[in-house]
Amino acid sequence: MDKPVALDPRVQNRINNLIEPIADDLLSGAAELALRAITVFQSVLADQENDLLQPAQKKQALTYTAKALIDAQPAMAPLFHLGNDLLLAIDTATTNEAMVERSNTALAKFENRLCDSAATIADMAYDLIDPGELIFAYSFSSTVVSCLLNARARGRFFRVVCTEARPSMEGRKLASRLAAGGIEVIHTFDNAMGLVLGNCSAAFMGCDCIARAGVINKVGSWMLAVACRELNVPLYALSGTEKFVTDDRMFEFERHERPGVEVWDSAPKGVAILNQQFDLVPFNLLAGLVTEKGVLKEPDIEPYLSNFSVHRALKLEAAEVS
Amino acid sequence: MDKPVALDPRVQNRINNLIEPIADDLLSGAAELALRAITVFQSVLADQENDLLQPAQKKQALTYTAKALIDAQPAMAPLFHLGNDLLLAIDTATTNEAMVERSNTALAKFENRLCDSAATIADMAYDLIDPGELIFAYSFSSTVVSCLLNARARGRFFRVVCTEARPSMEGRKLASRLAAGGIEVIHTFDNAMGLVLGNCSAAFMGCDCIARAGVINKVGSWMLAVACRELNVPLYALSGTEKFVTDDRMFEFERHERPGVEVWDSAPKGVAILNQQFDLVPFNLLAGLVTEKGVLKEPDIEPYLSNFSVHRALKLEAAEVS
Repeated sequence: MDKPVALDPRVQNRINNLIEPIADDLLSGAAELALRAITVFQSVLADQENDLLQPAQKKQALTYTAKALIDAQPAMAPLFHLGNDLLLAIDTATTNEAMVERSNTALAKFENRLCDSAATIADMAYDLIDPGELIFAYSFSSTVVSCLLNARARGRFFRVVCTEARPSMEGRKLASRLAAGGIEVIHTFDNAMGLVLGNCSAAFMGCDCIARAGVINKVGSWMLAVACRELNVPLYALSGTEKFVTDDRMFEFERHERPGVEVWDSAPKGVAILNQQFDLVPFNLLAGLVTEKGVLKEPDIEPYLSNFSVHRALKLEAAEVS
Repeated sequence: MDKPVALDPRVQNRINNLIEPIADDLLSGAAELALRAITVFQSVLADQENDLLQPAQKKQALTYTAKALIDAQPAMAPLFHLGNDLLLAIDTATTNEAMVERSNTALAKFENRLCDSAATIADMAYDLIDPGELIFAYSFSSTVVSCLLNARARGRFFRVVCTEARPSMEGRKLASRLAAGGIEVIHTFDNAMGLVLGNCSAAFMGCDCIARAGVINKVGSWMLAVACRELNVPLYALSGTEKFVTDDRMFEFERHERPGVEVWDSAPKGVAILNQQFDLVPFNLLAGLVTEKGVLKEPDIEPYLSNFSVHRALKLEAAEVS
């Protein structure tokens, strides 16, 4: 194990400032935030201040960045894998040059993987959108958006129903993005799902991470899933396999509680506000997990849960000790 | 049939002004609005302007008031029954004195019925609140509020979880009212129901009307009901039997669509907003209907659907012809 060395507080501050917008972003999906996290790593790599000139300092700063990104959005698996891939890549690097080169290779590979996945998933989702039908879409997922816009661009006509996704209302971002892309959108509030779902031929959602227990996504996904089953609407989670995590990491999403004032800024005395961001949809409520490797069902997922190494700095036990 | 006579537009205006606040009230339950409708009828009865001095004019004005109240809140059965009871009571009255006397008797009887029902229902609901448990409550219902406050006043300790009930947010009114009455409240947004319901020992909702197909209540009630069944939480609708209507009138609730700007005041071009207020919960999703006549199940409801006459002015066919 590396001997833990305290990172210069000035460096920590510079990194925290880069990461803060990602922690505060409640409107973007996990894949989208991972792309922005790539630029955070690039900034840390390019940082030429005195306190980051030594290879050990640089490595320490990159490790701190990886952990801080995971802490910023603990439910979002791509942020974990991005940092993990980078830390594994630089593990044996001893010079700044080697570190920069291996990091850039790892970041580029990850970005390509995300983009290739999105394109393959879009092609597969095309077949799930029946012409002239109504598709339900929940929350905001760049994967779902690219699938729907791709289908529209390929000449398929359909309408999309989406809901607000309180409290952050990222459903409005989804509605705006789809309408700007020429898709006819019907928008309503979350508790009206039951009024519209019955008219939909399929429902799509993104996801933040996947493990044996199911799929983690924006809170409300479980309600959507239960309603879909009741109304016989197939619900698909659209997601690259970079969303798979180990079972222990999956429940990290429960740490992501936001301030109550984001729900009600003037709650009276005696009223406690609960502002959890994510919930868990078990596989038995999904018609399938649409990935770049195909439409997966529960029995298919086992290999994906363990086909990656976890860098020692990101192991959950290690994280708790430090 | 009465020959339809046009009502003086000035009288119509005076009545419309009295009813407008009831049409615009999205925060109050049906029983609460019925109590306010009683004062509307009292104002029309007491109106001494020239254009309402003749018995025929007065009767016409009361008929107009009854219809306009139903149109203001077409899902709310007590508004229908209040007007119906009054019109049946004055049907054969030929003098102003007789009309006022019979109206006042009908209004007082209706008010007493509402209040007696609420007290009896509160006693029955007491037994459904287990000590120390968490109760889920949805939307705003004066019946539910009086049940919970009554139980607390009788010394039962419990906590209540409630959600916003978008878009009108009458769940905040519920939270505030309960907290002011000394009940510990946990509040969250509607799509987080799935995160909290599993910890609740029972769920309560009010209702706006009841017929053979089930119970009409604030939109989101169906999602709540499906989630309750999934999590084995018994869901009770608390309601006096003045909520029963004929099957044809039940679907009047679908007429109650509100302006889209109440959901999103700056929706972009290409995004249509759906703002429906009510949905239908079938009886098979309810653990019971808690009324002043006992906790009713589906097989018990038949007699209540037909134990009242409908005044000819309020028959739906007649209303469409006029």
